[in-house]
Amino acid sequence: MYRNHTCGEIRMENIGQEILLAGWVQRVRNLGGMTFIDLRDRYGLTQLVVDDHSSDEVKNIAATLGREFVLQTRGVVRERSSKNSKIPTGDVELQITELNVLNSSATPPFTIQDDTDGGDELRMKYRYLDLRRETVRRNLELRAKMAHVVRNYLDSNSFIETETPVLIKSTPEGARDFVVPSRMNPNQFYALPQSPQLFKQLLMVAGFDRYYQIVKCFRDEDLRADRQPEFTQIDCEMSYVHQEDVLNMFEGLTKNIFKEIKGIDIVDFPRMTFADAFEKYGNDKPDLRFGMMIHELTDLVKGKEFKLFDDAEYIGGICATGCSEYTRKQLDALTEFIKKPQIGGTGLVYARVNSDGSVKSSVDKFYAPEELQLWAGRLEAQPGDLLLILSGGKEKTLPVISSLRLEMGRQCGLMDKENFKPLWVVDFPLLEWNEETQRFFAMHHPFTSPKPQDIDLLDIDPGKVRANAYDLVINGVEIGGGSVRIFDSELQAKMFKILGFTKEAAEDQFGFLMNAFKFGAPPHAGIAFGFDRLVSMFAGLDSIRDVIAFPKNNSGRDVMNDSPSPIAQAQLDELYLKLVRAE
Amino acid sequence: MYRNHTCGEIRMENIGQEILLAGWVQRVRNLGGMTFIDLRDRYGLTQLVVDDHSSDEVKNIAATLGREFVLQTRGVVRERSSKNSKIPTGDVELQITELNVLNSSATPPFTIQDDTDGGDELRMKYRYLDLRRETVRRNLELRAKMAHVVRNYLDSNSFIETETPVLIKSTPEGARDFVVPSRMNPNQFYALPQSPQLFKQLLMVAGFDRYYQIVKCFRDEDLRADRQPEFTQIDCEMSYVHQEDVLNMFEGLTKNIFKEIKGIDIVDFPRMTFADAFEKYGNDKPDLRFGMMIHELTDLVKGKEFKLFDDAEYIGGICATGCSEYTRKQLDALTEFIKKPQIGGTGLVYARVNSDGSVKSSVDKFYAPEELQLWAGRLEAQPGDLLLILSGGKEKTLPVISSLRLEMGRQCGLMDKENFKPLWVVDFPLLEWNEETQRFFAMHHPFTSPKPQDIDLLDIDPGKVRANAYDLVINGVEIGGGSVRIFDSELQAKMFKILGFTKEAAEDQFGFLMNAFKFGAPPHAGIAFGFDRLVSMFAGLDSIRDVIAFPKNNSGRDVMNDSPSPIAQAQLDELYLKLVRAE
Repeated sequence: MYRNHTCGEIRMENIGQEILLAGWVQRVRNLGGMTFIDLRDRYGLTQLVVDDHSSDEVKNIAATLGREFVLQTRGVVRERSSKNSKIPTGDVELQITELNVLNSSATPPFTIQDDTDGGDELRMKYRYLDLRRETVRRNLELRAKMAHVVRNYLDSNSFIETETPVLIKSTPEGARDFVVPSRMNPNQFYALPQSPQLFKQLLMVAGFDRYYQIVKCFRDEDLRADRQPEFTQIDCEMSYVHQEDVLNMFEGLTKNIFKEIKGIDIVDFPRMTFADAFEKYGNDKPDLRFGMMIHELTDLVKGKEFKLFDDAEYIGGICATGCSEYTRKQLDALTEFIKKPQIGGTGLVYARVNSDGSVKSSVDKFYAPEELQLWAGRLEAQPGDLLLILSGGKEKTLPVISSLRLEMGRQCGLMDKENFKPLWVVDFPLLEWNEETQRFFAMHHPFTSPKPQDIDLLDIDPGKVRANAYDLVINGVEIGGGSVRIFDSELQAKMFKILGFTKEAAEDQFGFLMNAFKFGAPPHAGIAFGFDRLVSMFAGLDSIRDVIAFPKNNSGRDVMNDSPSPIAQAQLDELYLKLVRAE
Repeated sequence: MYRNHTCGEIRMENIGQEILLAGWVQRVRNLGGMTFIDLRDRYGLTQLVVDDHSSDEVKNIAATLGREFVLQTRGVVRERSSKNSKIPTGDVELQITELNVLNSSATPPFTIQDDTDGGDELRMKYRYLDLRRETVRRNLELRAKMAHVVRNYLDSNSFIETETPVLIKSTPEGARDFVVPSRMNPNQFYALPQSPQLFKQLLMVAGFDRYYQIVKCFRDEDLRADRQPEFTQIDCEMSYVHQEDVLNMFEGLTKNIFKEIKGIDIVDFPRMTFADAFEKYGNDKPDLRFGMMIHELTDLVKGKEFKLFDDAEYIGGICATGCSEYTRKQLDALTEFIKKPQIGGTGLVYARVNSDGSVKSSVDKFYAPEELQLWAGRLEAQPGDLLLILSGGKEKTLPVISSLRLEMGRQCGLMDKENFKPLWVVDFPLLEWNEETQRFFAMHHPFTSPKPQDIDLLDIDPGKVRANAYDLVINGVEIGGGSVRIFDSELQAKMFKILGFTKEAAEDQFGFLMNAFKFGAPPHAGIAFGFDRLVSMFAGLDSIRDVIAFPKNNSGRDVMNDSPSPIAQAQLDELYLKLVRAE
């Protein structure tokens, strides 16, 4: 037996007991006659004491210890003379009688503590040491706990957890697949799933009624901070449901997670159409932690010989509460901000609402004070507020105002990470027109059902068709999304046609699904939550990396074990593959 | 709302209630004035009645229904005149007032019932229909329930469920990897994990203390009935433990699963060394549901001028209880059985113990009656028993006797699928000599610790070194296996050397692990259970296929969606790959 207690559990009531501990040396303090060793494991820290009462052997060993050495020790619990109220074991210490070094340690390349001195790259290379830091490990513990809560909720609602295959059929629709060459079927390939979409729909055809899985998915896309080539979804599907049933079930799940993990009761769970979200927040994932809603001013500002506005299709703005005192420099910085290429704005018009209620704008020569008052009224501004107004094409300008709104939210400290505001965005468009390829793409995926009242539009004006599709947004982050599915093989065939599939291509790639629909497919709908994002939001992190035990970097590499890596010629030969030299 | 009840929950207390149901048509019986429709969903069956009280519209629709049509119906619950005690809803029926066909169905290619008329291939092609059969769905429900029980046990024992990567580094040691070409790192490849072995060990280095994961693993091996290219493991690792701690923890898990799922208390959980298992059962996974233990007879049978035995290194046999009346034909069949190429036996000597206690053998001319009595004594035979004796080289003969023993167990009906006899097999050899490549291979894997008392043998006689490795065997099936791990970088380096790795190759492939061991690796040990096998054993199945929702066939193909499949030239180009034409 290496231990009979952990380093986190010894308390006053253990005083006098002889105890066996094992763990890592967090710190050694040698105070001449006494040596204090902080011994750490996953459960906590316990102070060990070597003093005059200790044997020479113990003293000699204690003198050789360094950080991260692995120890096993036996000792008697006693009350500390100088207590540490910051840790649960801080009232006691272990006066040790036996000390075994189970393993030594080289000096770690960075300090194993919450505020480490290690840079990102170094910590990733030594991820096994980074994970020793309590802050990092706690994120992974949170992840495990959240998975547990999710499973309990879904299990208790009759969902059957079902594993779907990882080696599946490659389909070119959607993002880029990772592929896996098959040795037994030469020159053929499996794909790794971007989601278990088809399988979960087939499980509904199979009568499983309610399915879920916490499942790895894969996308061979260029990476960003919150993207990884492999990621985890809470993937769900239900039969004999309408959109409303799905929203209620997963509103329940979301509330349950907040309650179980954070002790928070989420009361409001509003719904907003995609069209409204775009008009009022400039994007499809409004952050509702603060107002600063977008209002259109087009009708108020035109025809006053201000060319910028007169030429614009759309003029709209927001009211930044309490920002009327922004300096010229701050306002210039905001103009710079919206002009960044990734935001793509052009110019910013502002107006300050002074404490006396008068409005002073950057375009005073075009607009009379009464007109500016109308702007302030439309934007529901109060004395002390700042109006920020942009103009241009509507589709392009609203997203710029959205970015400005979020920036003002940040600057005004309105984005408290512990304030959670969920929202359902509904009624997404079914299709998106792609200029480059001159064809429609499915906004959600090709299996999403049009809204029944819009089906007639499919033949006339497909771009106008709305879908029974929905996203769960929390604090401006898309946490999940789903849709009611098509369950009629003819409608599905029509959908493939609109998406530009030939009959043969549709048959080749999705024939088994359309065939399945011929044998009594039930109405069904589903949703998937991005589990990494959900956990990182609960952990208060901006990136998903620190809620993944072994993440990859932006080139898709694991820098710890230096993979991907070349494989042997014999492996390639077995797979009937030849490498082409990259340029 | 499609339904407010399921087809499995209506009872006498619902009589008089108006209820909405949805489901599939299991059967329609038209009895002239009345039509009975059995409506099925995952939860059960409810009988719908269309009779004189029904509207013409309902009658007309009812007349068009076929098997597997999808219906929504409204009706009033009433007591049946002729009750069906075989189903929980058998006391009641629904007199229907509304009937909507949500979807029609083509005639299924096989009947959707427990005793289907569909052959294996047809059922796999239409797996979504096969899964509608209650027997098949129940296996998947069992699987979900077992996963739930496993997680609860491990969660309550402080294991942290942690996801490890699916896109990992390829290592040529062990079975053949599936590989995944990297687009972002041209000419380099990820591998799919054969197990999360290295990552779970790194999690122990990281101080996670206790880890588990129910995880997909992958092996590109030629397939058999109980092998799939992707399979699921319950994968676990613990720190600061000895072998005994691991055995106790997972004995607890196993007992817990039996208790929770089958209501069985497993009391006996014996342990047996690999050496004993081989001597007494001829293999490393003894089926303890019956005795028929192997006894060596070499010392008793030599020197009697029976050349076969005189020339043999080893002679051993079993006693088949109550089989003394086996006919000549039956005995010939047994000889045929052991001569099958996959069993590899040569000849069989038998002896009957007659009801008067006399022994009559096939080699009476060489052995006196008293000598045969000694055989019977050694094999603990009673009147009515049959002795079956084989001879040859010891290593080759014991496995043949093992096969014969299992065959006799089957013939004697001793292998009750609901009688569960678990066993730990311990002290496996560390290494296996491979004649073909003239090198040692790790019997478990290269990270397994030798038994401390055998470490000195590593330099002298590596083949004799025993490992701290263990297998969980239930009813002759290897359910799990694991080992205490090496946690010292020098011993690990030595192990790689014995396995024929050059220093460079070891560094290239496992350098990050040996490096990790330099920073205070704790003693650790682990185990993995084959989840598919465990579930199939609980389901009473011989193959793992029916506990997998979408299994692959023996060529690694999913016949439902016809994958793997060719991919587009553009995909190959992006991956810098060229196909080589297979012969």
